[in-house]
Amino acid sequence: MPLTPAQFNRTVNAPHDLPPLALSRDAGTTLADQLAQRLAERISQRLLPPGARLPSVREAARRHALSPSTVVAAYDRLQALGLVEARRQRGFFVREPRSAHPTPALPAQQPRPIDATALIRGMFHQGLRPSPGMGALPPEWLDLPLLHGALRRTMAGDASALQYGDPAGDLGLREALARRLADIGVPARPAQIVTTAGATHALDLVSRVLLEPGDSVLVDEPGWAVEFARLSRLGMRLLPVPRGPDGPDLGVMARLAAAHRPRLYVSVSVLHNPTGCSLPPAAAHQVLLLAERHDFRIVEDDTYTHLAPPHAPRLAALDGLRRTVYISGFSKILTPNWRIGFMAAPEPLVERCVDLKLLTSLTTPTLPERALAWCLDHGPIRRHVERVTARLDAARSTVQRLAVDAGCRFVTPPQGLFGWIDTGADTERLAQAMLDEGWLLAPGALFHATPRPTSLMRINFATSQDPSFWKALIAVRRHM
Amino acid sequence: MPLTPAQFNRTVNAPHDLPPLALSRDAGTTLADQLAQRLAERISQRLLPPGARLPSVREAARRHALSPSTVVAAYDRLQALGLVEARRQRGFFVREPRSAHPTPALPAQQPRPIDATALIRGMFHQGLRPSPGMGALPPEWLDLPLLHGALRRTMAGDASALQYGDPAGDLGLREALARRLADIGVPARPAQIVTTAGATHALDLVSRVLLEPGDSVLVDEPGWAVEFARLSRLGMRLLPVPRGPDGPDLGVMARLAAAHRPRLYVSVSVLHNPTGCSLPPAAAHQVLLLAERHDFRIVEDDTYTHLAPPHAPRLAALDGLRRTVYISGFSKILTPNWRIGFMAAPEPLVERCVDLKLLTSLTTPTLPERALAWCLDHGPIRRHVERVTARLDAARSTVQRLAVDAGCRFVTPPQGLFGWIDTGADTERLAQAMLDEGWLLAPGALFHATPRPTSLMRINFATSQDPSFWKALIAVRRHM
Repeated sequence: MPLTPAQFNRTVNAPHDLPPLALSRDAGTTLADQLAQRLAERISQRLLPPGARLPSVREAARRHALSPSTVVAAYDRLQALGLVEARRQRGFFVREPRSAHPTPALPAQQPRPIDATALIRGMFHQGLRPSPGMGALPPEWLDLPLLHGALRRTMAGDASALQYGDPAGDLGLREALARRLADIGVPARPAQIVTTAGATHALDLVSRVLLEPGDSVLVDEPGWAVEFARLSRLGMRLLPVPRGPDGPDLGVMARLAAAHRPRLYVSVSVLHNPTGCSLPPAAAHQVLLLAERHDFRIVEDDTYTHLAPPHAPRLAALDGLRRTVYISGFSKILTPNWRIGFMAAPEPLVERCVDLKLLTSLTTPTLPERALAWCLDHGPIRRHVERVTARLDAARSTVQRLAVDAGCRFVTPPQGLFGWIDTGADTERLAQAMLDEGWLLAPGALFHATPRPTSLMRINFATSQDPSFWKALIAVRRHM
Repeated sequence: MPLTPAQFNRTVNAPHDLPPLALSRDAGTTLADQLAQRLAERISQRLLPPGARLPSVREAARRHALSPSTVVAAYDRLQALGLVEARRQRGFFVREPRSAHPTPALPAQQPRPIDATALIRGMFHQGLRPSPGMGALPPEWLDLPLLHGALRRTMAGDASALQYGDPAGDLGLREALARRLADIGVPARPAQIVTTAGATHALDLVSRVLLEPGDSVLVDEPGWAVEFARLSRLGMRLLPVPRGPDGPDLGVMARLAAAHRPRLYVSVSVLHNPTGCSLPPAAAHQVLLLAERHDFRIVEDDTYTHLAPPHAPRLAALDGLRRTVYISGFSKILTPNWRIGFMAAPEPLVERCVDLKLLTSLTTPTLPERALAWCLDHGPIRRHVERVTARLDAARSTVQRLAVDAGCRFVTPPQGLFGWIDTGADTERLAQAMLDEGWLLAPGALFHATPRPTSLMRINFATSQDPSFWKALIAVRRHM
């Protein structure tokens, strides 16, 4: 049955419309095989997530300059592999992965956080160049000799590697962290600190200890997709609070708190991801008053702390770490690979988190914790932070100019690692198209608790300085 | 009101009856302060868990050769600190820790797995000498130069520390693990393997992916307390299956499976903790048939794999890794501190575990994974395994003699790291009393899904060779 004009238009304008892939007419394999292989790779990397629609045959043929029969052959191959399925009159869609052994039925799941895992899988994809969608500093900004020097120094004559570590984490590191927290006004004794496998692990532990399925949790919107996905997976009801340069919308927060009695508010207070905004002191005070009035706790995720301006107020500092749990780590300043994070909390809560840490992963490795303590105690981290923040300041100026020249608008004032910009085009479509050019984007839909079409996206200032990215963006947007 | 003779007897025979603590009449502090301090330490280490009863004043006075008024002063001090509470006519009990900030009520919890966390906290306690209750090899059995050499070699010129690792774990390590698995007959491609922060983390990930609160899970009894505690905390119903030298009781397993439709059977098939028994091949086959008939999956925890006799059959090998998830690690052979474990499973399940790993801790550190891959690929681990197993064989002979001379009986034939012995006395009371002498025990009650009084306990052959331990055991048992 031929498509109606409306159906045809919907198909041509499908969100996963792909510009030309780099197919070679000289390669040993057929063009159909090459197309099938490229799409299969993208599906396996979740860059085309389950449920995504492939471009129509006609559109794919036009884009890749192939005959429709070649595209049909490629799609047939993907269908035979079980990677895509044809739906009558609607086209080809990426399938949910099937079990190799279908008998033991997998339990009914929460809706899968496909977009969040697609984004973070993209962050780990090896084949991509430094891209605006990435979440960390580029490796060349980091200091390998500092890290390896600290490890070597710590290794010498230290036999701690041979026994389980302290369940709460290396005491020397917890002491160093307590001193660092004192510098930003957060009063934590070492006994109030537990180390974790990165800040993400700390967020997971504290959520599992404090929450039960069905509990309501206040979150900033836009906010960090991995946090939304993890809380949803734990069975929590998310209550999104609009977050802007002045902090969360306190009116909305008060109404949601009164109506839903949330247990928790999870927030990146300083250099918020993705907007880059920091919570103004007056707003911080109001948030704490609301927490007191409506009796919820606060988890303050201070992941970007080392890039923060001096004297940015922390909720945990104002609150004296009574109602607030403070979480941070070193992925955004030293290395994302070591996976060292921590939380500071009231002591009874810390004890419960240590118990859960023991039950779910026993301890954390001592050697890198001691090496990190050495970095903190002996100053090299301070010099490294100065170098990185100066470089980031310069990157922000460069990227600001490039983005504005490319017709983009900053929704919030550029600060910290991330910029939040309006591209003037649907960023989910833009992200799929730019991926074909080898650039990873972080479309705005990923930062909403309930994804919706948006022309906003997050950019990493450190990895958006290449003018050829902005040139490609202009060209792709023109063809959308 | 004076105690009745029956009350008096119950108090004297309380399970947490303490033999003399080392109190000094010459110390700068009073005897009451010393007693209070020693008990407070024990409470904070969970060696006296919440809910435990302190010995009666009369009994404590007799044991420690103190006047009753001194004991009363010590107990009053503990009560003033909020550590214990007096219950009318029943004595003093250790309190649940109180929140420093009581307003935000903590959610209602599953019953706290106090005993399991007490045991594992004991395993990490710094002040104790090598003790029968410990779960790992003593540090002097391990090879620090091997580990540090592998790290140094891996560090040289490797910049992987500066980026997030592969979400599934370092590919080189997964390839090495696939070769190791092929050696024991488990067919796993690297894409079917995901590395974790120790085997415990793998068990947590796979439980969270496969199970939902309220699901039933078959477990071996006796079995590993941390596994029981973690599954209970996830809201699972445990279905204990008696486990002996012939494997699990298949009749009980079949009846439980028919009645409760469990989703999963979690089992240490080889060198089972705590009995040391390995699953006979015929029993392994029957277990897989039951799993097929009743449609449950199996998680095979092969933590002790490196200490296992050659050709011990794995469920995952017989099953071809279809219905079975294989989990193992290196804590019992290389070091418990590095926290490297892994699972091998059907690929769609691995994908879901990688997604959960990402959401809950992002990635695992690359440097130790590459160093471990080097150890596996270049043979030093094989020589180390030979040395350890020979030393363990010798330790088993020594300990067998010492235990039998001390009037203990082996319930199962001594094999592997752990022995399962009958001491002829209640091992919970024995454990409390021996702790005063500085020895950590693992009483049998910890290995039961529903703790019950038992004269059995688990001993670690490597850390039970000191004749003075057995002498102390005889002396303490005589006074019980």
